[in-house]
Parts: sequence; structure tokens; C-alpha cells
Amino acid sequence: MDSFMQAAFDEARQGLAEGGIPIGAVIVHQGRIIGRGHNRRVQQGSAILHGEMDALENAGRQPAAVYRESVLYTTLSPCPMCSGAILLYGIPRVVIGENRTFMGEEELLRSRGVQLEVLQDEQCISLMEQFIAEKPELWSEDIGV
Amino acid sequence: MDSFMQAAFDEARQGLAEGGIPIGAVIVHQGRIIGRGHNRRVQQGSAILHGEMDALENAGRQPAAVYRESVLYTTLSPCPMCSGAILLYGIPRVVIGENRTFMGEEELLRSRGVQLEVLQDEQCISLMEQFIAEKPELWSEDIGV
Repeated sequence: MDSFMQAAFDEARQGLAEGGIPIGAVIVHQGRIIGRGHNRRVQQGSAILHGEMDALENAGRQPAAVYRESVLYTTLSPCPMCSGAILLYGIPRVVIGENRTFMGEEELLRSRGVQLEVLQDEQCISLMEQFIAEKPELWSEDIGV
Repeated sequence: MDSFMQAAFDEARQGLAEGGIPIGAVIVHQGRIIGRGHNRRVQQGSAILHGEMDALENAGRQPAAVYRESVLYTTLSPCPMCSGAILLYGIPRVVIGENRTFMGEEELLRSRGVQLEVLQDEQCISLMEQFIAEKPELWSEDIGV
């Protein structure tokens, strides 16, 4: 795992330690992390702070040009909301830890020209598998998967 | 304008009064507003709190079944991020104030079975036109439209 995916994975583990859903993300601009975050559904009762959204929010109010030179690293395949945010901001490249436990809107993103790299990282897969096995009702609460 | 679009429009005007981007939304479940909000990019330096997202966040942590019986009212055609949130939560119907000043992901939403109604409301149009004319740099800051 490279250092940026490691940072996203560390965010996911922090989320788990807080009793939350273990998905993390970082946004990298010109080789530097400008925003990092993890899912906060449990911690803040949030419907919108997925890992990717939390990272975007923590990056603050950036100009369009910054997003268009950024790479998003996320431990899990991005859901429709997070994929929409990627399209809104024109983020050109997304590195995905794994898509085995959840398949997001990868086809939509590719069809709009976003470059995706799926690592199928064993640590990312096993973190989610363990979480889903332990808290299936939390995992299926919001979208009923 | 019906009472739910009026509530969304009131949110938009409140956003304008705060110095923000005048887009508002409400989420209605079984005839009752369960969440209302407006764009908070300026007010909170937020990259993710569009009107629709703010309404979703203010509705709190709802179960999947609630979203699937809800209607989203928004003063402006929903952008990719907000459209993605609509798809994520399976919101079946969206009432849109107008799409003249900005065309969101209406085709994508329709292609996924979301029922859209576009009012082309003159008050919604003129609120956005006036804002864009007065603050073009703010309107184009994040996605460079």
C-alpha cells in the first residue's frame, strides 16, 4: 500500500476505533494531502459525511483548478453521492482500495473520463468484511444493501 | 409556488441574506418537512453543503425506508453531487424550481427512474439571475462554470 492509500486506511481504522463505519479517504494535490477524512454517520449522525465527502470538506473551500489537479484515494469503491462529488469537482483520478465488499459508480465515473485504479487491497477488504460481519444492521441502515 | 417549494425558496433567500449562494431545499416525508437547508459554501467554507445536502444532513440519520418515500424540493436543478445523493438514498421524486440558470444531472436521474418535475418558477429564476449577475466570481469559484 502506498503512503496515500495508507493514510486513507489509517482514517478508516480511526473511524472503526470511534465505533463508526471504517471507510477513509484523502485528497492529494501536487503530491501533498490537502484533505483527509472518514465516514462519520455514527459519530456525528451524519447522512452526508462519507469518507470521501469528509475529506473534501476538510480540504476546505478550494478553487476549481485545485480539484482538477487532484487525486482522491479512498479505501472503498465510491457510492453514487461520492461519485457525484468527484464529477462535480472534476477530480480526474481516483485510487480505490477495493470494490469487493461494495461496488460503487465506477462505470459512471469511467464513462465520464475519470481514471480509476482499483487495488483490491487485502487489508481494505478484510477491514470491511470484518465490519460487515460484526455490524450488518449498521452497514445496511441507510441504503438497505 | 406550493408550500414545500416556498419553504425551499425561503431557505434560498435566507442563504442570500447571509451573503451566501441562494439555493435552498427541503425533504418531505409523508407530507411533512423532515429536513430543510441551504447552500453554505460561503457561511461555513463548505465544499459539500449544497442546499440539497444541507437538507439531507438536517434530516439526520434516517433509515432507508424513509428516503424511499420522500420527495426532495430544490430551487435549482441538482448538481452531480446532489444527484448522486438522490440516487444513493433512492429518493423517488424531485421537484425542481428551475433549470434555466444551471442544468444539473437531470438526464442521469431520469435514466435511473427518478421522477422529476421542473417548475421553471420565475421567482427561483430571478433570484439566481440576480445573484449570478452580482457575484459571478463566487458562482464560478468551485466548478468554474
